Amino acid sequence: MIIDVHGHYTTAPKALEQWRKRQVDAIGSGAPAPRASELSIGDDELRESIERNQLRLMRERGIDMTIFSPRASFMAHHIGDFEVSNSWAAICNELCHRVSRLFPDHFVPAAMLPQSPGVDPATCIPELVKCVEEYGNVAVNLNPDPSGGHWNAPPLWDRHWYPIYEKLVEYDVPAMIHVSTSCNPAFHTTGAHYLNADTTAFMQCVTSDLFRDFPALRFVIPHGGGAAPYHWGRFRGLAQELGRPPLAEQVLRNTFFDTCVYHQPGIDLLMRVIPVDNILFASEMIGAVRGIDPETGHHYDDTRRYIDAANVDPADRRKIYESNARRVYPRLDARLRRQGR
Amino acid sequence: MIIDVHGHYTTAPKALEQWRKRQVDAIGSGAPAPRASELSIGDDELRESIERNQLRLMRERGIDMTIFSPRASFMAHHIGDFEVSNSWAAICNELCHRVSRLFPDHFVPAAMLPQSPGVDPATCIPELVKCVEEYGNVAVNLNPDPSGGHWNAPPLWDRHWYPIYEKLVEYDVPAMIHVSTSCNPAFHTTGAHYLNADTTAFMQCVTSDLFRDFPALRFVIPHGGGAAPYHWGRFRGLAQELGRPPLAEQVLRNTFFDTCVYHQPGIDLLMRVIPVDNILFASEMIGAVRGIDPETGHHYDDTRRYIDAANVDPADRRKIYESNARRVYPRLDARLRRQGR
Repeated sequence: MIIDVHGHYTTAPKALEQWRKRQVDAIGSGAPAPRASELSIGDDELRESIERNQLRLMRERGIDMTIFSPRASFMAHHIGDFEVSNSWAAICNELCHRVSRLFPDHFVPAAMLPQSPGVDPATCIPELVKCVEEYGNVAVNLNPDPSGGHWNAPPLWDRHWYPIYEKLVEYDVPAMIHVSTSCNPAFHTTGAHYLNADTTAFMQCVTSDLFRDFPALRFVIPHGGGAAPYHWGRFRGLAQELGRPPLAEQVLRNTFFDTCVYHQPGIDLLMRVIPVDNILFASEMIGAVRGIDPETGHHYDDTRRYIDAANVDPADRRKIYESNARRVYPRLDARLRRQGR
Repeated sequence: MIIDVHGHYTTAPKALEQWRKRQVDAIGSGAPAPRASELSIGDDELRESIERNQLRLMRERGIDMTIFSPRASFMAHHIGDFEVSNSWAAICNELCHRVSRLFPDHFVPAAMLPQSPGVDPATCIPELVKCVEEYGNVAVNLNPDPSGGHWNAPPLWDRHWYPIYEKLVEYDVPAMIHVSTSCNPAFHTTGAHYLNADTTAFMQCVTSDLFRDFPALRFVIPHGGGAAPYHWGRFRGLAQELGRPPLAEQVLRNTFFDTCVYHQPGIDLLMRVIPVDNILFASEMIGAVRGIDPETGHHYDDTRRYIDAANVDPADRRKIYESNARRVYPRLDARLRRQGR
């Protein structure tokens, strides 16, 4: 079985975007925000948006199951206040939940959180609880920079975040560390901000005792870990310089890298540098890079091809495709077992 | 010959740091700032600080010439106003100039600029002129984020920066895009901020027409280009998605990556992905990572070992070690020729 741990609902029906526009326009206008009940998307529309897109590509590529979360760049936690984020997160999470109910064999949901700049992350707990307990979410996406590129939230090792971590540990649910759109003109969203956030989050883990406080907490660093694997010697050297334990002891028990790296040399480096137990198959399909690579004739984000072509032991490939994900996402494993898979 | 395009004067005599402390302490205190003439460092002290450190390691590693600039993390453009940065840059640049006079066969200077957040970069021109015309500097370090991690300066393609670019083109001098210390707790200086800046700058080049306006402008992206080579497929795909020309046409005529990547797999990736004409040998020695890698028994930053061990044609290796640097830094080439090298 092939499990893709990183898919977003980037193809939701237009009505979602229109509702969001009304919500954003209402901020500070004096007009009331639209109610959730004013968004009406039928099951047929949902089915079509998935069947023609993600599910079609999953079938073409042989991907069996995707951990499916709301569109990352649309989370936009910097817009409005907590109430705005809370209504928006509830709507987006419900849609992913519905997709997973319509296609239970192919999609399992992961939640966005109703984060808002300067607001206590504990306010996200009710949405998290609902998503895990009622919707069967197996993971959450945690945004380390809800400001959208201004980076004024405390680092991930700060106690600011501990209420979230306590709940994640209680539920045995990992967090993918994933920023949203950049409203800072310095940072292109998918070409700089995403990768920078991955590198930043990884280094925050290197310099902190976060995983001593939460030995069972698990972070998934998306986009192949940002710059970390390419600069693995630098990170090993910095850990040494800072008097920290080796990365294998201090960080790799709790952090995992996905395979959203869109060319063969990048995947080959990831496989060569990062222990196989820390690599999780993912494509982020349909995501930031949707085109066909003229050098290969295949989609850039068809990451399965790179992994199949990589010089990896078949047993290790199975870890990357399936068993690591079952271990890192125990609620996914439980769901698959209930399905007899 | 082996030319290291990226060395910093990280081993300056303590008096420099003490002078800087007095300068910083004076800001807003009502006390006068120390004068430049109050800093006294003799040639013997300079010689010793270099001979025992950078020059010793250059000899051990067979590096013939280093492009030598003030300590990057100490530039700290976010401290004080333009006058503070201007005095500090003048002092640091003069020291590198003196080092290059004391060791003309081994060091050639590159300048830091007296940038200051929110201040017109044109104010940096007099220092730049002095460094090129009087001190023989062959390059400058340009900080894309003088705020030190708040990233509130315009992107590098903004006309804000054009006065600098005009002067660089006039002098045929490249800019290394290099941030300084991070005062944002989210970003570890050398483990996140540096690499993020490299990735950010590269993506700013991808999305802009900067090099159409300045076809002769050259940027060196340090630290192996941040995350760019590891995610080369992503960047190629994003350029395509955004309707930009291929990277080879649009960016690689003007941008170059150094080899400050501190392990063999990273260097191997760089060599595999980036055209050899765009790779410049560098170590950033003595810099962020000073230790010995227990996996190899050698210094992490002994990057020559990785390049010697890489699967590269000898002619290509000569490009990386010497001829690319002579092409990208014509004033270095002229100086070497004057020396009969």
